[in-house]
Amino acid sequence: MSFAYAQSPLNRRADLRGNVTELAIHHGLPTSKCVHVAGDAVRMAQGSLDVAMPAATKEIVFLGLDQQGHAWFATQDNPGDSHVSLRTLMIEGSLPAAELSILAQARSLILWHAAHGFCAQCGKPTSMQDAGYRRQCQGCGASHFPRTDPVVIMAVCKDNKTLLGRQAAWPEGMYSTLAGFVEPGETLEQAAHREVMEEVGVRLSAVSYVASQPWPFPASLMVGLIAEAETETLTIDTSEIEAAQWFEAAELKQMLDHTHPKGWHCSRPDAIAWHLAQAALKKISGSFASPQ
Amino acid sequence: MSFAYAQSPLNRRADLRGNVTELAIHHGLPTSKCVHVAGDAVRMAQGSLDVAMPAATKEIVFLGLDQQGHAWFATQDNPGDSHVSLRTLMIEGSLPAAELSILAQARSLILWHAAHGFCAQCGKPTSMQDAGYRRQCQGCGASHFPRTDPVVIMAVCKDNKTLLGRQAAWPEGMYSTLAGFVEPGETLEQAAHREVMEEVGVRLSAVSYVASQPWPFPASLMVGLIAEAETETLTIDTSEIEAAQWFEAAELKQMLDHTHPKGWHCSRPDAIAWHLAQAALKKISGSFASPQ
Repeated sequence: MSFAYAQSPLNRRADLRGNVTELAIHHGLPTSKCVHVAGDAVRMAQGSLDVAMPAATKEIVFLGLDQQGHAWFATQDNPGDSHVSLRTLMIEGSLPAAELSILAQARSLILWHAAHGFCAQCGKPTSMQDAGYRRQCQGCGASHFPRTDPVVIMAVCKDNKTLLGRQAAWPEGMYSTLAGFVEPGETLEQAAHREVMEEVGVRLSAVSYVASQPWPFPASLMVGLIAEAETETLTIDTSEIEAAQWFEAAELKQMLDHTHPKGWHCSRPDAIAWHLAQAALKKISGSFASPQ
Repeated sequence: MSFAYAQSPLNRRADLRGNVTELAIHHGLPTSKCVHVAGDAVRMAQGSLDVAMPAATKEIVFLGLDQQGHAWFATQDNPGDSHVSLRTLMIEGSLPAAELSILAQARSLILWHAAHGFCAQCGKPTSMQDAGYRRQCQGCGASHFPRTDPVVIMAVCKDNKTLLGRQAAWPEGMYSTLAGFVEPGETLEQAAHREVMEEVGVRLSAVSYVASQPWPFPASLMVGLIAEAETETLTIDTSEIEAAQWFEAAELKQMLDHTHPKGWHCSRPDAIAWHLAQAALKKISGSFASPQ
């Protein structure tokens, strides 16, 4: 499986993060690149990423070295006309998958810095350390590290049917897999059981891992699962989702192929949700052992 | 697989978190329980958990309802003589697995509250909301949510050997699977590749998911993997680990069984690491197809 944000070519070289001298050399090389992140958008220049290095005095995050050994950095930018959102870049497919994946790392880290200028422990200002992988409090000295939020996202199957739902904010006709944040003290499997029970009142029997995807809105790690349901009746929590229903294989295939008569469709192939729906289709088609 | 912290019987009932009236009723019921967490320790009473409800004025976190429908809460406590650390409780096996798992949730949440009294965005004080699943800034109004840090932990195999390492701080003779935090913008699989390359210079070919475990020191989610290595030469980063080596099946079995002549051994069965070493033993034994 290959989907958006999951194909970074960078070697993160954590060993360089504390090496101020070597990073300063990379900063001065003409081959070094820096992406300029403003909110969930990045600065473009003539249809490509603007990778101009900023002044040496500007705070930058070290992302890693690419396969040519060239350094990539990221910095926070002010919003402007030449910025395009990561979602738009993903949908338009205007950037190579490798660059979009580098932006996932850049966007998550830059947003974390932007939202962590103060110490959660004592309220005093913090400053960037270790080339962007730590912030330290100038008051109490506490260290703070970038945050990644694990999310379970699951295709639920029962016999020849798969369960998909939709949120009110989604594009009209789009149905996708259920998802939710993992809570403290839970396994991934427990989180899947809980989320499906909360959102649609369905009890799961088995849960299997499929794949994972970084999702930089703002800093999630999507853990893709396929699950089997024990029960079928839906009790929808409308505070979380607008609708949910079971789809048989033929209808699910139409939704994946964008040929459904009502215009219903799955999410885009950039998202792990699409691949989970594909995996579910394979599973529920297999349960018929139809001659294909 | 069943290991420590992964067997919570609680229904978290997220729908009750905003229901002040119903939570107040539960607070007053004689069947309701509250655990008292101080750092990584919990208050005990005569060899059992002290589950006395605190005064109604004290800030408490709602953990969920048990199978009898009784509410469990958690609150922050001052350290004292009657407190025992979660690690000691795990090692001694003095609590039921279900209660130890409830403590994982309690400890992660209470520690998060203790360390987030201030807004990371503006430095002003925050207050507990939603029965402990959110903090809100009294200055800028920003919402902050509990944090769970995904960690990859992996048994690396090559032909008939498994790679284990040890940290200087560990008990003498203990070897275990390599592990490290997932970074922003990474898949689980990329994190495994990176960590193994960083720590021992070994390149992986394949990575498969095995199981997950909450690890409340302070709030990690261990994602257990089994990996195949493409290369074998070890280049150890001694800033991260003290030693690492490849173990053949017979020696690995001795380490799991605590019969190794040098006293070398794997971690305890409470940890997912032990189960990964078991899975690795099965895998490398299988690669010989020996008649057993």
